[in-house]
Amino acid sequence: MQQSWKDVSFADLPLREDLKLRHAYGAPQLDVPVCLNVNENPYSPSSALIERIAAAVSDAAHRANRYPDRDFLELRAQLADYLTHDTGLTVDASCVWAANGSNEVIQQILQAFGGPGRSALAFTPAYPMYDEYCRTTFTRLHTLPRNKDFALDLNHAIDGIRAHQPGVVLLTSPNNPTGTALPIEDIHAILDVAPGIVIVDEAYAEFRRSGVRSAVTLLPDHPRLIVIRTLSKAFSFAGARVGYCACRPAIVEALKLVRLPYHLSAFTQAAASAALFERDEMLSQVETIKAERDSTVSWLRSLGLVVADSDANFVMFGKFADRHRVWSGLLHRGVLIREVSPPEYLRVSIGTPAEMGEFRNALLAVMADA
Amino acid sequence: MQQSWKDVSFADLPLREDLKLRHAYGAPQLDVPVCLNVNENPYSPSSALIERIAAAVSDAAHRANRYPDRDFLELRAQLADYLTHDTGLTVDASCVWAANGSNEVIQQILQAFGGPGRSALAFTPAYPMYDEYCRTTFTRLHTLPRNKDFALDLNHAIDGIRAHQPGVVLLTSPNNPTGTALPIEDIHAILDVAPGIVIVDEAYAEFRRSGVRSAVTLLPDHPRLIVIRTLSKAFSFAGARVGYCACRPAIVEALKLVRLPYHLSAFTQAAASAALFERDEMLSQVETIKAERDSTVSWLRSLGLVVADSDANFVMFGKFADRHRVWSGLLHRGVLIREVSPPEYLRVSIGTPAEMGEFRNALLAVMADA
Repeated sequence: MQQSWKDVSFADLPLREDLKLRHAYGAPQLDVPVCLNVNENPYSPSSALIERIAAAVSDAAHRANRYPDRDFLELRAQLADYLTHDTGLTVDASCVWAANGSNEVIQQILQAFGGPGRSALAFTPAYPMYDEYCRTTFTRLHTLPRNKDFALDLNHAIDGIRAHQPGVVLLTSPNNPTGTALPIEDIHAILDVAPGIVIVDEAYAEFRRSGVRSAVTLLPDHPRLIVIRTLSKAFSFAGARVGYCACRPAIVEALKLVRLPYHLSAFTQAAASAALFERDEMLSQVETIKAERDSTVSWLRSLGLVVADSDANFVMFGKFADRHRVWSGLLHRGVLIREVSPPEYLRVSIGTPAEMGEFRNALLAVMADA
Repeated sequence: MQQSWKDVSFADLPLREDLKLRHAYGAPQLDVPVCLNVNENPYSPSSALIERIAAAVSDAAHRANRYPDRDFLELRAQLADYLTHDTGLTVDASCVWAANGSNEVIQQILQAFGGPGRSALAFTPAYPMYDEYCRTTFTRLHTLPRNKDFALDLNHAIDGIRAHQPGVVLLTSPNNPTGTALPIEDIHAILDVAPGIVIVDEAYAEFRRSGVRSAVTLLPDHPRLIVIRTLSKAFSFAGARVGYCACRPAIVEALKLVRLPYHLSAFTQAAASAALFERDEMLSQVETIKAERDSTVSWLRSLGLVVADSDANFVMFGKFADRHRVWSGLLHRGVLIREVSPPEYLRVSIGTPAEMGEFRNALLAVMADA
């Protein structure tokens, strides 16, 4: 800082007490040759697609002095069309809502259906942002552990729902950080007993192995189900920040009561619509990533490591008595992966074949050093 | 809707009780020849600027598969440079924070410094979104009325702060919907007695009349002051959704504890940076708008109407026994303005000279019909 005026400290600020000891959420943003730490898609858009995105934004820029469409109906129609294609269930724009990342969608859901005196239930290890959403919305978060193989213990889950009566159940399929998908029958059974909203966070759904059904197909029978998706992963569009959900139209109307007006910019709407128009191209590397993931799982298992089944674009592996040594050793060799819960495991995102080659060489070197 | 599955109603959903009777916030989005209802800037970007925005977005799209810079340091540096230019106080990136519209900035402030058991204080008539932010963050909102001429009664305000001890004081200068700016001495006096954060919402600051000082200049002496700005109004960039604030670096760090990670997309960062790089062009119509505003105020007064002083790009005028008749009559003639509090007044945004000509003709016709 260059100011001559002195800054204050947190202690001097009237900050909420529960925030004073917190650190801002987020993985370290380090400049490293091989970044395999935040589950990004390693393939950048083609030149042709970039041109179409720029043309769409240029078109929107002619009206940049005006507020965007608050209800972004065109984008919602395209998202609905894609979901219909992906899941086989006919969905239209009235059943779709979007925001700046699935983060904002889930926060809006908790703003509408959580809050003081209400609780949410998640199954750990889970996406660590769930804690943040609950803290920000004053929703009490209950957690139940998954099994040792990271599958959900259904009976245990049902007992927990009956005991806590959560306003919101947070299911993640495929789960982050473990990669594990939930059997559709388990989601069905949970919907039958949950008293409130059931979120199924399918951020990584496009990477699921064949035969794994999307929870979107449960919408006709379950009016309190919300399925979360994103363009950040399979669609290779993390920079655009577009998350969305499928649910009953009445839930969309409820989210409009808590969304900030005009939350989705004209440029976001234009860029996302352009990308969805070329969805086959956007998704063209999904099969490559899935194949690389499956071979990564096999290779890690061949080293004698414990590796969770993965339906996502990342793999969780362990167990390391000192995982931080392994993480640091990889970083020292130019490969950045992630230390996530549980404490003896590491998580690697699936990169290009060349990047995964670097990862394998670095891991062998680090393990040989032990 | 095309679904065969039946939708649920609000009554069937586990929605927060205080939301069940609400309507989504926002002005009607109607397709009308002359839109003077949401304080937009009527001048669209030049072709040259649109090209530069498209080029910046195209550049960012090459990395669209990657998450954006979570701390958007380049954009913050440019915003700081502009504030330094606009206010005369040297500000750097560490003192600036931004989000998807000033809406999101203010919501983040209330998430960090408001919450259950805390209150905010605003002076009515005020920006109606203040109610929404407080409801969403469970912050109790106290309000005190402004004087009949819409100026703040300073003694009354100070008494109110002493009585309520609000965690956040919400000042708006120029005020929306009245257009009235606050004397810098009043802001100073309020900062001296307020126990918590003081927000000065300067969304319309660039339209202030000469001699009106920005509250940014008070930052060196007041560590709990946050000044809100936006690119939506003077910068003619409402479609891009960029609001920002200036404050002490420790406050920026506090906002990082509640912000959703990667809340500002790579495209938003790129487009806003490109626009700020050409800030003289972006702001080139501000003087034209101010002149049109001043002549609108004079013209309305010449009709015998009560018109609030305006330092903004809109004018509030009255009093109408039946303002809805006037509003509807204007709409019928293709001119959309806004019914805002207080109940006998209407608010018109300043458009181009041609649009204001349409407004004047329509208003004369409607008033002649009475």
